[in-house]
Amino acid sequence: MKPLGRHVLAEIYGCDFEILNDIKKVEEIMVNAALEAGAEVRECVFHKFSPQGVSGVVVISESHLAIHTWPELGYAAVDVFTCGEKVDPWDACNYLTTNFSAKQMTAKETKRGIHPVTPHRVAVNM
Amino acid sequence: MKPLGRHVLAEIYGCDFEILNDIKKVEEIMVNAALEAGAEVRECVFHKFSPQGVSGVVVISESHLAIHTWPELGYAAVDVFTCGEKVDPWDACNYLTTNFSAKQMTAKETKRGIHPVTPHRVAVNM
Repeated sequence: MKPLGRHVLAEIYGCDFEILNDIKKVEEIMVNAALEAGAEVRECVFHKFSPQGVSGVVVISESHLAIHTWPELGYAAVDVFTCGEKVDPWDACNYLTTNFSAKQMTAKETKRGIHPVTPHRVAVNM
Repeated sequence: MKPLGRHVLAEIYGCDFEILNDIKKVEEIMVNAALEAGAEVRECVFHKFSPQGVSGVVVISESHLAIHTWPELGYAAVDVFTCGEKVDPWDACNYLTTNFSAKQMTAKETKRGIHPVTPHRVAVNM
């Protein structure tokens, strides 16, 4: 069975404190990352924490981009989930790394939706 | 370095079609999953696709819960990211599996924020 989607979890380190702590900038960069990857933006929600940090999600037709920032550590935890062939989640991760002025990004991709339930149900019914 | 968070990617199969295609029910179950896990809900955004499917995210103080549903496949792609010791992402995944009347859930946990940039920078500067 072909996977339904690709989900990249990216650890982005050595980012600019001011960017990671600015909810408007984080939202703008996340939306642009989605567009850069060829996605269609549907909904956005961002939240600013006190004393610092931003969490937010861009819901796209092809799934989502999510971020949580620790400005004091220069760290952003990002995940980008895309379905279909049109959008490449790595394009979004690379765009974010550049625009957060990050020094390092490590990431891994997981295929989503590849374990059909049918064989399990057949086995149970035998 | 202790990880900053835990991120569980869950594949939930054999779910009830009507639940997965009902934006209000999906949102209610997702919010309750967050509360069940001990999280504090900050923001919610959900989107209904045509002809079927729901995408949505619950932003919590401890990070987020996200979902994308394929009602026609009985499949929900869920991810739950939590920070701190108080909230267990597996509690949320188990709650969702039960409340989607699912037949099967497979999941894996990834530790987030465990690769500090400092050693990399030191190595580069040597």
